[in-house]
Amino acid sequence: LTVTAFALPGIPEVRPGDDLAAHLARAAGDELRDGDVLCVAHKVVSKAEGRLRELAAVAPGERARELAAALERDPRHVQVVLDEAVEVLRTERALICRTRHGLVCANAGVDASNAGAPDTVVLLPSDPDGSARALRSRLRTLLGAAPAVAITDSFGRAWRHGQSEVAIGCAGMRPLDDWRGRRDTGGRELKATWIAVADEAAAAADLARGGKDSREPAVVVRGLERHVTADDGPGALALVRPVDEDLFT
Amino acid sequence: LTVTAFALPGIPEVRPGDDLAAHLARAAGDELRDGDVLCVAHKVVSKAEGRLRELAAVAPGERARELAAALERDPRHVQVVLDEAVEVLRTERALICRTRHGLVCANAGVDASNAGAPDTVVLLPSDPDGSARALRSRLRTLLGAAPAVAITDSFGRAWRHGQSEVAIGCAGMRPLDDWRGRRDTGGRELKATWIAVADEAAAAADLARGGKDSREPAVVVRGLERHVTADDGPGALALVRPVDEDLFT
Repeated sequence: LTVTAFALPGIPEVRPGDDLAAHLARAAGDELRDGDVLCVAHKVVSKAEGRLRELAAVAPGERARELAAALERDPRHVQVVLDEAVEVLRTERALICRTRHGLVCANAGVDASNAGAPDTVVLLPSDPDGSARALRSRLRTLLGAAPAVAITDSFGRAWRHGQSEVAIGCAGMRPLDDWRGRRDTGGRELKATWIAVADEAAAAADLARGGKDSREPAVVVRGLERHVTADDGPGALALVRPVDEDLFT
Repeated sequence: LTVTAFALPGIPEVRPGDDLAAHLARAAGDELRDGDVLCVAHKVVSKAEGRLRELAAVAPGERARELAAALERDPRHVQVVLDEAVEVLRTERALICRTRHGLVCANAGVDASNAGAPDTVVLLPSDPDGSARALRSRLRTLLGAAPAVAITDSFGRAWRHGQSEVAIGCAGMRPLDDWRGRRDTGGRELKATWIAVADEAAAAADLARGGKDSREPAVVVRGLERHVTADDGPGALALVRPVDEDLFT
């Protein structure tokens, strides 16, 4: 079993309304196969879907202005974060928010870098699992191959420095490998028995990028055939633990 | 840039006092090179170092008995968790502990599965960064190659289902790739600018294992040469965020 990750070259700057699957298919050529997992940074998905906001058109409310002052941030950016958040969980050192997808992350996933236009921020896709399904379906039409698709973002982690890439949407793969209830060779129930395969694939893909400004949004991860499925599957929603069932907070 | 991960075959059951580096060198043969990252599941490191406890010799105290009753657990196992924990952060659904290494994880890393002997639990290595340095040094002696070494464990994550493999020790690599302060092509500061490379490498390695009972504790991750260093470096301690600086809790 060998797992390989490599970035697709030559994906152009993506603009609202672009046919992202066509960009990906062109970049992939013959390189994309059934059984591959194509990991796509959410930013290009969001851009293609027009999930952008121009800050000039944002009028920050009182709460946004207060939080922006405390955190030394642009109040318009904070207002967009509040607009994207269903719940703000922490405000002390960062804006840790729950999005309407149930994701808990900094700034509700709103990001000002690499937006492609000045004073513009990129939001998360409205429905990342739906985006993954649509990309997978269109890639099948264009290429004849049906790789799994994962849509990824960089998340900070509680009690750890740095970010790691995780899957916020996926189609055509089992996001979790469930070994719960299985026994070790000595008959003891296994500990790490519910493996977040889609998140680990996203992390592996991130390692194959030259760098954060390298315009390599799409990475093929090969060797995960046993996690790839014929149907779209449950999506990355299966990775979301409801806030009131969290083990750590 | 292609990143590849493959498990080393034929590593025997590891016992206290074993020369783990010799096992790894034998399994690697010519397959291990300078510039590789060898990811080793902590369990074999802990076993070689004798970081095991027999539950028959553990007398659970009152707090262990109370927590064990509430969580339906073996009170002796809970006592070992308390012995390994500097601080218990949560007890509602799991025992979320801070270890003396500063790691925050379930059960202070104490694990009953695959211990190699009945009624025995495996602890984390006393000093995982030191273990990584020692393995790297001895591999250099045995093989003439000096790969980076990462020692890994499966951690649950706040607000997400499933576990992902992370680095709890490392030597010979930069655990974090620091892009902070760098700008995107439009001049905006980059968002995901501090990438937990060692954790992403651990995750990639986990994908190359056949399964949790497959006895593949060691995985070579190739293609991360730009993160591999001549010196041992800061270790995975650099990934630990102090509890009072956490962004999420």
